[in-house]
Amino acid sequence: MKPLIQVALDNTSLEDALKVLVKGVGDEIDIIEAGTLLLAAEGKRAVSIIRSLYPNKIIVADFKMADAANVMVPMFLDSGADLMTVICAADPATMRIANEKARSRGKNMQIELYGPWDLERAKVWYGLGIDHIIYHHSRDEAKEWGEKDIKSIKSLCEVGFKVTVTGGINPDHIKLFAGLPIYAFIGGRSIRESEDPTKEILRFKAEIDKYW
Amino acid sequence: MKPLIQVALDNTSLEDALKVLVKGVGDEIDIIEAGTLLLAAEGKRAVSIIRSLYPNKIIVADFKMADAANVMVPMFLDSGADLMTVICAADPATMRIANEKARSRGKNMQIELYGPWDLERAKVWYGLGIDHIIYHHSRDEAKEWGEKDIKSIKSLCEVGFKVTVTGGINPDHIKLFAGLPIYAFIGGRSIRESEDPTKEILRFKAEIDKYW
Repeated sequence: MKPLIQVALDNTSLEDALKVLVKGVGDEIDIIEAGTLLLAAEGKRAVSIIRSLYPNKIIVADFKMADAANVMVPMFLDSGADLMTVICAADPATMRIANEKARSRGKNMQIELYGPWDLERAKVWYGLGIDHIIYHHSRDEAKEWGEKDIKSIKSLCEVGFKVTVTGGINPDHIKLFAGLPIYAFIGGRSIRESEDPTKEILRFKAEIDKYW
Repeated sequence: MKPLIQVALDNTSLEDALKVLVKGVGDEIDIIEAGTLLLAAEGKRAVSIIRSLYPNKIIVADFKMADAANVMVPMFLDSGADLMTVICAADPATMRIANEKARSRGKNMQIELYGPWDLERAKVWYGLGIDHIIYHHSRDEAKEWGEKDIKSIKSLCEVGFKVTVTGGINPDHIKLFAGLPIYAFIGGRSIRESEDPTKEILRFKAEIDKYW
């Protein structure tokens, strides 16, 4: 399967997020992400409102939850999200409960790598039945993508994970990941703040078509 | 200074959270926490509405933020919170920005310890000017408090941190921390679900008066 394109709606109001979607993004995009900032601003209704508008898109609730999985996961998935994110610092008990709650709904969770992690812990998560990882560059850290990232992502793919890649990604980065089993590339500001976001998404897709 | 008592409003609606506050908790409590679940459900307005009702209480926005500090911290502090939480997995760049944004408002941030951490990293945070740590037991993990915790908390106090303690804490736990420079004890379900929450808070305070 070719990598999908995900837009991160890291807006600070629902109004701004919806403006991005109706500006052409909502038609061409594969996955709509209710970003952490949007959820911080609006809570779970950001998810339910986006779901009402886009009944057939994949929706991610990027809350980066750390605890209370038995309440948090149903809260977002039953609001209409297909995927929800859990921060890798969460206790394995949280991972296990989050995965069970998601799977029992025919949905899935994604572990987002923030701070210290290693392949041994990742294998524990995989052993719990979790098969989706988000590999990111922190917005605040603002690093460039390089060989070290590709090596880490390869090692996660070899464990069996589907990997989503995020953090300042634009179409020129796509070739770095050529041939890897990437689940999705997340575009944030590069899509949201583009003068022609549809064209920007098509640029992503054209690059993907070259390398997959 | 004696430890304060904080109630964690980990409700899943503003209505339920406000019911807890008007049931006597809002009068006796020192610190009101807009819990992660409440923020997930309602977004930042949970903070601004609690602030309207309780202009003189200390309010914590427990979002456990991991990134985008330059937007996230103003969002919650300018909604009326005095303190906001950052997860320890966040990049040091995020810690630094969060601390600057909070201090420039005469407010403060708290680092919540989730997942791997060690004293060396904690000293880096302290070096950035951050002096507040939340030491917790994960709700999903449900461990008991013991000697190992006290030792870890002591080592953080020795660095210079004010420590807030949370995770299944009830008044019977208070004596375990006797004499340590604890900033606050957080009561969650033990206060929220008590038949007489005011009495439960007074039980916390009586125990604190015995040991500090």
